[in-house]
Amino acid sequence: MLRQKILNDPVYGFIDIPSGIIFQLIEHPYFQRLRRIKQVSLTHYVYPGALHTRFHHALGALHLMQQAIRTLREKGVEITPEEAEGVSIAILLHDIGHGPFSHTLEHTLIQVHHERISALFMEKLNEEFQGALSLAIQIFRDEYPKKFLSQLVSGQLDMDRLDYLTRDSFFTGVYEGVIGYDRIIKMLSVHDGELVVEEKGIYSVEKFLISRRLMYWQVYLHKTVLSAEQMLVRTLQRARHLATTGWDLPGSPPLRFFLTNTVTENDFDTNRDTLLEYFAALDDFDIVAALKNWMYAPDRVLAFLAQSLINRRLFKLELQNTPIAIARMEEMKQQVAGWWNGQAEDIPYLVFAGQESNNTYNTQKAEIQILYKNGEVRPMSTSVDFEIQPRNTVKYYLCYPKMQDQPL
Amino acid sequence: MLRQKILNDPVYGFIDIPSGIIFQLIEHPYFQRLRRIKQVSLTHYVYPGALHTRFHHALGALHLMQQAIRTLREKGVEITPEEAEGVSIAILLHDIGHGPFSHTLEHTLIQVHHERISALFMEKLNEEFQGALSLAIQIFRDEYPKKFLSQLVSGQLDMDRLDYLTRDSFFTGVYEGVIGYDRIIKMLSVHDGELVVEEKGIYSVEKFLISRRLMYWQVYLHKTVLSAEQMLVRTLQRARHLATTGWDLPGSPPLRFFLTNTVTENDFDTNRDTLLEYFAALDDFDIVAALKNWMYAPDRVLAFLAQSLINRRLFKLELQNTPIAIARMEEMKQQVAGWWNGQAEDIPYLVFAGQESNNTYNTQKAEIQILYKNGEVRPMSTSVDFEIQPRNTVKYYLCYPKMQDQPL
Amino acid sequence: MLRQKILNDPVYGFIDIPSGIIFQLIEHPYFQRLRRIKQVSLTHYVYPGALHTRFHHALGALHLMQQAIRTLREKGVEITPEEAEGVSIAILLHDIGHGPFSHTLEHTLIQVHHERISALFMEKLNEEFQGALSLAIQIFRDEYPKKFLSQLVSGQLDMDRLDYLTRDSFFTGVYEGVIGYDRIIKMLSVHDGELVVEEKGIYSVEKFLISRRLMYWQVYLHKTVLSAEQMLVRTLQRARHLATTGWDLPGSPPLRFFLTNTVTENDFDTNRDTLLEYFAALDDFDIVAALKNWMYAPDRVLAFLAQSLINRRLFKLELQNTPIAIARMEEMKQQVAGWWNGQAEDIPYLVFAGQESNNTYNTQKAEIQILYKNGEVRPMSTSVDFEIQPRNTVKYYLCYPKMQDQPL
Amino acid sequence: MLRQKILNDPVYGFIDIPSGIIFQLIEHPYFQRLRRIKQVSLTHYVYPGALHTRFHHALGALHLMQQAIRTLREKGVEITPEEAEGVSIAILLHDIGHGPFSHTLEHTLIQVHHERISALFMEKLNEEFQGALSLAIQIFRDEYPKKFLSQLVSGQLDMDRLDYLTRDSFFTGVYEGVIGYDRIIKMLSVHDGELVVEEKGIYSVEKFLISRRLMYWQVYLHKTVLSAEQMLVRTLQRARHLATTGWDLPGSPPLRFFLTNTVTENDFDTNRDTLLEYFAALDDFDIVAALKNWMYAPDRVLAFLAQSLINRRLFKLELQNTPIAIARMEEMKQQVAGWWNGQAEDIPYLVFAGQESNNTYNTQKAEIQILYKNGEVRPMSTSVDFEIQPRNTVKYYLCYPKMQDQPL
Repeated sequence: MLRQKILNDPVYGFIDIPSGIIFQLIEHPYFQRLRRIKQVSLTHYVYPGALHTRFHHALGALHLMQQAIRTLREKGVEITPEEAEGVSIAILLHDIGHGPFSHTLEHTLIQVHHERISALFMEKLNEEFQGALSLAIQIFRDEYPKKFLSQLVSGQLDMDRLDYLTRDSFFTGVYEGVIGYDRIIKMLSVHDGELVVEEKGIYSVEKFLISRRLMYWQVYLHKTVLSAEQMLVRTLQRARHLATTGWDLPGSPPLRFFLTNTVTENDFDTNRDTLLEYFAALDDFDIVAALKNWMYAPDRVLAFLAQSLINRRLFKLELQNTPIAIARMEEMKQQVAGWWNGQAEDIPYLVFAGQESNNTYNTQKAEIQILYKNGEVRPMSTSVDFEIQPRNTVKYYLCYPKMQDQPL
Repeated sequence: MLRQKILNDPVYGFIDIPSGIIFQLIEHPYFQRLRRIKQVSLTHYVYPGALHTRFHHALGALHLMQQAIRTLREKGVEITPEEAEGVSIAILLHDIGHGPFSHTLEHTLIQVHHERISALFMEKLNEEFQGALSLAIQIFRDEYPKKFLSQLVSGQLDMDRLDYLTRDSFFTGVYEGVIGYDRIIKMLSVHDGELVVEEKGIYSVEKFLISRRLMYWQVYLHKTVLSAEQMLVRTLQRARHLATTGWDLPGSPPLRFFLTNTVTENDFDTNRDTLLEYFAALDDFDIVAALKNWMYAPDRVLAFLAQSLINRRLFKLELQNTPIAIARMEEMKQQVAGWWNGQAEDIPYLVFAGQESNNTYNTQKAEIQILYKNGEVRPMSTSVDFEIQPRNTVKYYLCYPKMQDQPL
Repeated sequence: MLRQKILNDPVYGFIDIPSGIIFQLIEHPYFQRLRRIKQVSLTHYVYPGALHTRFHHALGALHLMQQAIRTLREKGVEITPEEAEGVSIAILLHDIGHGPFSHTLEHTLIQVHHERISALFMEKLNEEFQGALSLAIQIFRDEYPKKFLSQLVSGQLDMDRLDYLTRDSFFTGVYEGVIGYDRIIKMLSVHDGELVVEEKGIYSVEKFLISRRLMYWQVYLHKTVLSAEQMLVRTLQRARHLATTGWDLPGSPPLRFFLTNTVTENDFDTNRDTLLEYFAALDDFDIVAALKNWMYAPDRVLAFLAQSLINRRLFKLELQNTPIAIARMEEMKQQVAGWWNGQAEDIPYLVFAGQESNNTYNTQKAEIQILYKNGEVRPMSTSVDFEIQPRNTVKYYLCYPKMQDQPL
Repeated sequence: MLRQKILNDPVYGFIDIPSGIIFQLIEHPYFQRLRRIKQVSLTHYVYPGALHTRFHHALGALHLMQQAIRTLREKGVEITPEEAEGVSIAILLHDIGHGPFSHTLEHTLIQVHHERISALFMEKLNEEFQGALSLAIQIFRDEYPKKFLSQLVSGQLDMDRLDYLTRDSFFTGVYEGVIGYDRIIKMLSVHDGELVVEEKGIYSVEKFLISRRLMYWQVYLHKTVLSAEQMLVRTLQRARHLATTGWDLPGSPPLRFFLTNTVTENDFDTNRDTLLEYFAALDDFDIVAALKNWMYAPDRVLAFLAQSLINRRLFKLELQNTPIAIARMEEMKQQVAGWWNGQAEDIPYLVFAGQESNNTYNTQKAEIQILYKNGEVRPMSTSVDFEIQPRNTVKYYLCYPKMQDQPL
């Protein structure tokens, strides 16, 4: 008899891993690579517990998907065994296209969105597994007739979000971010082929939205986290600048490849397999190992940034509700230039501004649909119980070295 | 050397009980009586874990008060040892005036608000303890110059609320109600003598407001809880009606006293000590023991209500956003009258309507004040980060027996 | 479609209640009565959170039984739907024969063991439900051919123990008592019709035994708990003594019945239905309501004991590893007699000795069987990994009033 | 006014970091390096949450030390501010000498015990901080007159163990390993200058011993973890073999240094500062980055081991209670040799045996001392409540490739 594999997960207790193709996919080097990509990049510089990986997140999302399937079936929604496997594979692999440090370096190392690369990996795996992922790919691309299956993978209340909010609040220790994932799942239903939430789940969903916003500003966009991540972006930009202008930077072969080449979506059309192999060879370890090496690079900018990151001498980051005034920016550049005592072209790597935004709930996009007891279905924003006034909040930042000591 | 008493609390781990007068007050029969008054009345009919008492809540609020005092002192706020003891006593005794089933029977058994009775108990204890509670009473009555001390006892973010939301969500198992009490406390500060919250605590506070609203509609005003509690009110009203019209109902002496006498606030002016003794003799056990007895009462209405409550045959409760139409009410009364086959005057005990409301955040009242990094203090509702659109939500209900079986 | 009922349980999150007869049994007044019987008697005098009831415990054990059934079926053990229902009913009702304050008053109010009364209730319900409980009764009585089903209800690793240890440590806040109930369940298997534990579960089982022992000495037999419970026993003995010698004590009708009559197992043979009705009318509330009344009884002993219990003026209890010396006992009796200044026959209610014992793991009884990877099955005590040296630990106590104030 | 830094820790909630030298030490690159050394090596290959670092552990142990200091002071034990700082620094830095993958590579990369290197780092820091660590070093070396301070850093119940057991069980999700660290700390006391445990803490301590044993066999010495870690050792041994026989292996400069040089304790006497700098440059990232590179090494053995580790194709590990028979070992070597089809000298890197042991409680070493209520102090093993029969359990293993596919 077939025995499932059981995993201990501090978040959910035990996770049952179905045998068969799902187990084989987890064993695949592409998926094992996710063990080496942290879920929330440099967040651990502020929240030291947040070292969890995309690997763990994907398994957690798979676990929630099993629960969602069970709940929907109990409510009479038909989900065939093939569909259950397909939607499970889709959620398992939804993030397989993430590169080192996930979102932080998303457009620095490669000019392609991670979901596009996830799709490419899934196609490649589909060939390896003789078409066994076809249904999963349809669901992932939202091309399968039963819409709700795609919505469980990617939508306002998908298993991705339910897991990452639960998991990130767990490992950061920001317990206020905790959501009622189990209650939300128990409140899911399907109406006209679309995912809906039963009326009495509305408070849980509202709480989920507020928790998500809290996690954005308190964790993901925490100003120290933002500073570290933006410094990492500037470091890689500097390295790419040097690499493309003839410097021979130490680094792993795949990292050197992506530093010297600019890869765009089109390149995958002509050269998919090679590019995927290079990309699959890349993870957080290549970056950190390179940073440790670059601390001793002859380029002052690169060495300074690498040392600052490795030794956690983070830049100061000012965060405000209005755009950074040009005068303030210029003033700071001058101050840093005096301290740095280097070349003018170095300064943009040391002083930089930017913005981040978060939308609590976007009523312009596909809304969460509420199923009322009388059978009616209406978007959540029309409910008298909906008391959030969602905004797209934008925050602006200015970031620069603390200048307490000599730069190098 | 003086060793504190340590209590195991499943919510906070360990609670340290200061020795001295606080320990003596906890040992006093008035306070021990709170062991016999459940915090959330009949909520356990829906959430079976919710059997915690006012006793436990008062100790929890005391525990949080110790944390708040420590935090404020670390920020340089002066709190003398006498003030620390005073504010601790005030929070410890803030609910000592609650009667059986707390809010449910608040105006059924006695025409006096529980806070007024708390004040009376505190005065009585002050006499017993030779004036040692004077400062606590000043704080409780908001007559002490340092406003923030009173606000820690009763205000938008007092230790009462922080404990009851934490505790009630813990014992109901509604984990979505969990608030970041420890983070909120760490964000408290004092400005111009008033309690304020540091800017970066704003998300935690917003989450606290949303959690509180969720707890109202999902727990405190859950329709089955509401039904049980309203049935209890009707049962006591019926008992009082019978008792005041000559019936000799079984019941404990203090219960019989409050059923046959109408006690108002003025009565305490002339007869404080006797009335307090009677009141202090009353708790949940008098009510439940009486209900068990009344199941066999010759009065059909009383017997039916008591049986329904004890055996948890709860009435159906329709909850809606608009007032109950008179026609609907009348129709239901007729239907029940036919089934009941009794006297017309019985019906109001069996069919009744009412309303409940909850205000997420009342900007008309004293607002939560936010302390910005630049030293400014402004009400929370003016913050760009405040995305709640608070409403006073009113819900209306109609409640009546299920009429599946013969009434008796 | 049939929708299950879902309960929030702070211990397990959500509990699914199967519809059908199990749901009907839960709704039955016999079962609802368990809402009024605390699981751990007066333990809340030391651990204020420990107010949970036999009702909640029975539902928790039912929940674990569903998990055990699922696990065993996944391992290929055949359990028919009828058997699954039977074993679920058996665990649901295993404690239905408990009286007020569970074990504390077990042989004081009635001379019958609670399991015997559980069996009687099950027979009565079987008649009401036209034989639907027959299989459950067979399992409960260990008369069903598939032994392991009975072992899941009552055995070294039954769902009763797994739930009560988990639940009691949760509500007391003694987290060291936490056991790995989910892991132990996942390690269960069946061999030759008997329940066994897979080899790699041995550490969890050992930890379970040590946790159980810790709970005994730290919670169930905590000296303050023991004092309170023994005082309660003496109070009821005094009340019975008075009631049988002509006093007319206040109390509910069923309590008065059991105080004036001595009911033994044989009485149920001749008079089952009446006795069960009386017994079913009895719960914690009858006792506490009576205690509150007896505080004012003319009998000094009864009044003193009742006041001491209600106001938590608990007796001192000395706990030691050797029997109480007769001289020490006599010395204390004299001292108390002087302080009490009453009649000689009062003293045994005020000074008393006794003993409690706990056996960590009894190798004389049916042992836990370990299933090794090579297919062998051997008792746990023969494992090289078994490092406990189990003893039957006996502790002796002497209990008497603190004599700080005048007795009355 | 001085504001402490507060850290979110999922394990303890909030951790307060004292300002002053402790904060400066945490900011030091030597300490920040611990962010890049996982606490439990490759355990995450079985328990995916176990990615926590020595950095986090050191902060957790510091947190517990603050609690222990507070508890002991409340009991009247004198601890001066200087001693409090000293013992805090000692626990903070106790593991600063750990190298990559902590214990796993402890004697593979360098022939020096990590505690010796910790001491060297502390001396170096003491020079940097002008002698501010002198008292800490005395305590760390057990040379300070107040013995109990050293015992809090290293002893049967030190803050190191209390934190790592708590933390490791938290992040693995093996909740059965949870210990009552807070209760144990509250039970600590000092008698004749030595650390003792109050009598009523004995059950908690016993539970701690059993939990620790469970963690050893279920986590630290889990056979899959053991396999991965032993493979890592063999990989580094192979790399060192190649490096010392003239191969130019890719790798970071410090890794290459330790692969080509054999560093012993004596070398630190003559060359401390340089060696410490090299060692401080080394962490988990050097190893993993090298493994990723070595997957493509021309040496078949190195490439095979590196690929197997990176892609988690772990060797099979047989674990048993008796030594591996020579015949069994030889048989397996032959089988592997046939499959491997390489050189005889390759085989010891592919087939290897070993043993691991764990002692639940060593009564030969300094025992835990119990303080009885009568003032007596006796070793725990003499207590009638001590039911553990401690053994030094040895398990033996044989480890070899699964041979399902072609080796390369």
